[in-house]
Amino acid sequence: MSVGLIVQKYGGTSVADPDRIKAVAENIAITKRRGHDVIVVVSAMGKATDNLIALADSVSRSQSGREMDMLLTTGERQTAALTTMALHERGIDAISFTGSQVGIITDTAHRKAKIVEVKGDRVRAALGEGQVAVIAGFQGVSTDKEITTMGRGASDLTASALAGAMGADTCEIYTDVTGVFTADPRIVPRARRLRTVHFDEMLEMAGAGSKVLAMRSVEFARNHDVPLHVRSAFTWEQGTLVSNEEPSVEDPIISGVVTDMTEAKVTVLGVPDRPGISAALFEALADHNVNVDMIVQNTSTDGTTDISFTMPMADMAASEEVVRRVADEIDARDVTHDDAIGKLSLVGAGMKSSPGIAAKMFRILADDQVNIQMISTSTIRVSVIIPSVDMERAARALHMAFGLDSESDYAAPLPERK
Amino acid sequence: MSVGLIVQKYGGTSVADPDRIKAVAENIAITKRRGHDVIVVVSAMGKATDNLIALADSVSRSQSGREMDMLLTTGERQTAALTTMALHERGIDAISFTGSQVGIITDTAHRKAKIVEVKGDRVRAALGEGQVAVIAGFQGVSTDKEITTMGRGASDLTASALAGAMGADTCEIYTDVTGVFTADPRIVPRARRLRTVHFDEMLEMAGAGSKVLAMRSVEFARNHDVPLHVRSAFTWEQGTLVSNEEPSVEDPIISGVVTDMTEAKVTVLGVPDRPGISAALFEALADHNVNVDMIVQNTSTDGTTDISFTMPMADMAASEEVVRRVADEIDARDVTHDDAIGKLSLVGAGMKSSPGIAAKMFRILADDQVNIQMISTSTIRVSVIIPSVDMERAARALHMAFGLDSESDYAAPLPERK
Repeated sequence: MSVGLIVQKYGGTSVADPDRIKAVAENIAITKRRGHDVIVVVSAMGKATDNLIALADSVSRSQSGREMDMLLTTGERQTAALTTMALHERGIDAISFTGSQVGIITDTAHRKAKIVEVKGDRVRAALGEGQVAVIAGFQGVSTDKEITTMGRGASDLTASALAGAMGADTCEIYTDVTGVFTADPRIVPRARRLRTVHFDEMLEMAGAGSKVLAMRSVEFARNHDVPLHVRSAFTWEQGTLVSNEEPSVEDPIISGVVTDMTEAKVTVLGVPDRPGISAALFEALADHNVNVDMIVQNTSTDGTTDISFTMPMADMAASEEVVRRVADEIDARDVTHDDAIGKLSLVGAGMKSSPGIAAKMFRILADDQVNIQMISTSTIRVSVIIPSVDMERAARALHMAFGLDSESDYAAPLPERK
Repeated sequence: MSVGLIVQKYGGTSVADPDRIKAVAENIAITKRRGHDVIVVVSAMGKATDNLIALADSVSRSQSGREMDMLLTTGERQTAALTTMALHERGIDAISFTGSQVGIITDTAHRKAKIVEVKGDRVRAALGEGQVAVIAGFQGVSTDKEITTMGRGASDLTASALAGAMGADTCEIYTDVTGVFTADPRIVPRARRLRTVHFDEMLEMAGAGSKVLAMRSVEFARNHDVPLHVRSAFTWEQGTLVSNEEPSVEDPIISGVVTDMTEAKVTVLGVPDRPGISAALFEALADHNVNVDMIVQNTSTDGTTDISFTMPMADMAASEEVVRRVADEIDARDVTHDDAIGKLSLVGAGMKSSPGIAAKMFRILADDQVNIQMISTSTIRVSVIIPSVDMERAARALHMAFGLDSESDYAAPLPERK
């Protein structure tokens, strides 16, 4: 591969202790010595963020977003400084930066800030001097000069945003898995690693609950056309390339089965069927930053209708009060909750040119005695909400039925490592 | 006491764990509810800084100052955010700030930065809104926009600098001792707590090796005439007031015996006795940031002289190479090192009006068979370098001979707590 600009992002397990940081520094040094310009983005060490959250929980029941951001951003800064020192130890010129120092400008929504601009002046200057720029992920500075964070997993976003803004040739996401799989191997033992995934598929997988890459980081990469290479910081082997390369006709129709056990379902029963009702409900939830996922409203028969939606279990408490209040205001009959559900999705770019995938999926589930509660589709995804007790069995059945089971790893020999 | 502006600084042991942080928040809340404006300065939790240094040691042998400052400043930021959350829990409006955010502007000497200006705009705004401002100690931002630290123990400096810049009425330094003592109680068991100490005495004590208050923080407080109240965050009892109040004639001549076992002695032997030699040696040491303490040069007899000086043991490695190089350049005969020494000092504002203190001190040491290696004096202090094995015995002898021994705590009843 020709010499270029590479962004490397190292997740929490990749930098969990001094030995891991040294191994990571060695990989960065190898990349740099091959002639590449290198930007590194790091997460907090191992459980550092969780430990800080536990500390916050032990001194205060409700934590202000501003103070939590002040607290949590320290974890990534520690890793950035330590990684930079480990690079110095290897004779590599390097310099660490906070999100603020590299000009990752966000809006003012603490803990869930959105990037509004990436300036990157100091990164450019550092690269110009031949330095490796090591950047604390997950964080930025808001338009009103406060320290912000962009949500759990946002170090990926830092990496892809910088890769886009700096015009990187590739963005390597080093993590504790060896790539993107056809299913979660803990649930579907015969899952296998994918060589390539299209951005659109990856977005649908992330939306469907895959935790390998955060959705916003994939969006950034797609919008700036920066290929993401998901790979392991433990085996260093070739992983999965996420790019805008179109699938070939030989590729399977379905790329993966995605399972998500983190959502809960709320149903508002007996809602008067008149305009503005849905708006009232979901505006109120949006105002409280509840991330609503699937929404289903059935056909009205008696002048009332039922509205069901799913959201992260973590948002359940915050939303419960909101939903009850709105339900009262709109004269709904009742509100029910169910957190014993799971979301099961099929994702595949090939669906666009292959009708009947949804029907086949429903048939397989029916044959397996799995009751479908909600359905949602896109052009390259079909998702269903089913009882959580059925998830494992259903996922394995779909994985086999759509030809994803395999005894081996990748189907074809791997290209040389870059 | 009338309502005013109080700065409270909490050291590492005072905020070592969540329970300590909650106790500290409670004390801040009490102060705030009495109607005072409150600025809080916090150190890193317990051993947090030591742990970060250990991490740095484990990934790199030589650490750049810039990266160490990036790393170490995170500890105080964590405490500041956690303390702020604990205040919120108590219904106290509060906001945390980094050194940078409150405009503690320093020079560019990483790890040993000096304050060049305290802006404090955001602190003033927070106080104006009735908020407690909780500031991460130890750190600032340099004139070239980099994160800096001001050396170990510099959170005291942050506190007294802010107290000075904001015109605080008092600056409370909460620590793990109950005040300033006539000697280190671990070395002199009959040491007792002082009710008041003059700034000048405190400066001499700090210079002589007392660790209760850092010298620069006392200088700041003196220059801005902000009384420092050294007290315990464990017993919360009245401590020692450090101020510019002149001692009365009833006060003892000697306020304390100070012991310091942290220094090492270097002697450059056979130095040609010509102008510029001392300058060459000590300029070179200054260039390498070696903090030289006592310097003694004896009278020349044979055209050569010996120069001895002391410095922190920690600076020994850095200085050894410098001293040997300069010794070669100036044709000195040899260089010797001795780290089995201690510095023993008597400090007392009463010395100015009471001649013969030094003579009495030397006589007591001589009677006790303690050999004096170096002597240094100021108007209110006499310091000697003696073998470290003699330190404990000598300190106790001086403490008794100068009337400092006591069976009780303070001599007079305590005033009401403010």
